[in-house]
Amino acid sequence: MNKIIECVPNFSEGRNRKKIEKIVDCFRAKPGVKLLDYSSDADHNRSVITVVGELEAMKNAMIEAIGTAVKLIDLTKQSGEHPRMGAVDVVPFIPINNVTMDEAIALSKEVGMEVAEKFKLPVFLYEASATSKHRENLADVRRGEFEGLAKKMKRREWRADFGPKYPHPTAGAVAIGARKPLIAYNINLSTNNVEIANAIAKKVRHSSGGLRYCKAIGIELKKRGIAQVSMNLTDYTKTSLYSVHEMVRMEAMRYGVTIIGSEVIGLVPMAALAESAAYYLGIENFSINQVLEAKLLE
Amino acid sequence: MNKIIECVPNFSEGRNRKKIEKIVDCFRAKPGVKLLDYSSDADHNRSVITVVGELEAMKNAMIEAIGTAVKLIDLTKQSGEHPRMGAVDVVPFIPINNVTMDEAIALSKEVGMEVAEKFKLPVFLYEASATSKHRENLADVRRGEFEGLAKKMKRREWRADFGPKYPHPTAGAVAIGARKPLIAYNINLSTNNVEIANAIAKKVRHSSGGLRYCKAIGIELKKRGIAQVSMNLTDYTKTSLYSVHEMVRMEAMRYGVTIIGSEVIGLVPMAALAESAAYYLGIENFSINQVLEAKLLE
Repeated sequence: MNKIIECVPNFSEGRNRKKIEKIVDCFRAKPGVKLLDYSSDADHNRSVITVVGELEAMKNAMIEAIGTAVKLIDLTKQSGEHPRMGAVDVVPFIPINNVTMDEAIALSKEVGMEVAEKFKLPVFLYEASATSKHRENLADVRRGEFEGLAKKMKRREWRADFGPKYPHPTAGAVAIGARKPLIAYNINLSTNNVEIANAIAKKVRHSSGGLRYCKAIGIELKKRGIAQVSMNLTDYTKTSLYSVHEMVRMEAMRYGVTIIGSEVIGLVPMAALAESAAYYLGIENFSINQVLEAKLLE
Repeated sequence: MNKIIECVPNFSEGRNRKKIEKIVDCFRAKPGVKLLDYSSDADHNRSVITVVGELEAMKNAMIEAIGTAVKLIDLTKQSGEHPRMGAVDVVPFIPINNVTMDEAIALSKEVGMEVAEKFKLPVFLYEASATSKHRENLADVRRGEFEGLAKKMKRREWRADFGPKYPHPTAGAVAIGARKPLIAYNINLSTNNVEIANAIAKKVRHSSGGLRYCKAIGIELKKRGIAQVSMNLTDYTKTSLYSVHEMVRMEAMRYGVTIIGSEVIGLVPMAALAESAAYYLGIENFSINQVLEAKLLE
């Protein structure tokens, strides 16, 4: 199989169908690029697009999409639940097949340089592409959001990697980088007490003593009347779905709370599910090469 | 994607590496045929090969492999845990992509006719290719094994569909047919008592009151000093991996026995593992379209 990279750009527009479609169009009917999925959320006022493709084709489509979003989205008039610092908020490149992390990093920098020049858009490199430790974490890069960006960029340690020294007047700035596949996995609890969800999240997540590649927060799902442990697994090959599931179950026991369900947001790599199946089914010496579709994709 | 059929022939040789390789060679470096996997088990004295390919190429390679096995394997000198009636015990054709069950049945009959004539090998059509209801089930076709075959074939209802009226002197007979994808799933127990494995198998399998698409027998793994429930799931979309796992666990409890591990023989469809992961992880509204690789294969 060819070199295949995935990209999951986030755009700060989740309401205006016409604008969203114009951005998505940049990935449609392009040779070498395949649009896998896109979803928009009106509350968050954000759209997330998932595309896979060959490196050069992906680069060109991504630059076109960023240009389109910069033209269409005006952050001075935009608001929503989701934190954002740019019309194109974040552009992660994820190695999928025959692509190394170094190649993904190189691609992210090429895209960054081009969009900075073409659209006068400041670019922050983040995650594996970050040029400094304090810029790795997206939350840190984005802190202050669009409204605080002009002030933030005046500080030496928050100068953009590419592009102007000040925010784009309507499109802010963009974070571009390479990262491993990420799994968004949320566990629903038999309680509506968000304090309990938060206490569990604290035990499970890396930052407060939990599992190395797990980020977690407690949130309340008001409509369903339940609390949820909302997680991102940043390296599922090392911190597994079943590990976080069992750890949440174990911590929840302390409060007499049980897991009533869970959800995977967006796409999940086959290997992550296969590994959890192998764990629970107790399959000895399981290899991903035993999966028919893995062989077919070879 | 082209018309693709899968074939998972079972050969009654799991010890002699040289013979096994000669059989496997029939599927190597053949245009239109792709060897996906093969595994041999010394206790079972059996090798299972998994190949996918285009219809005509698959037919030719399969005929060559059957001829090779008939020449190399002498059942009068063979013994093992696994029941068998032929040097080539069973040859199932499985529609994978753009192939109907009727096309798979037609192919199985073409192969059956040719090998019957070429190698003087009696052929029983089974599963979807069976010419009569009582020949559908492989266990029924195989009952009596190689040693009882001559006597069995004298009965009108057990005449071969193609080929001679008596077994091949060293290669017995072969069952050929078309079927849905099957999962070979074995569960290892914390006991060496094969009676317990048999009692559990009886509870779990369809034929004696268990799950609709589960076949099961108890087997002793002498080398490891344990007993095993050896199963075939004939429609994993209806009888799931997790269902048989939990049912075996539940029945084993009665004897104070636990599951110490399991194994999947050959290839397993992604959907079967994904469904079991979704069960244990409690994923709500899970769809196979959330798996990245499913999207890539579309």
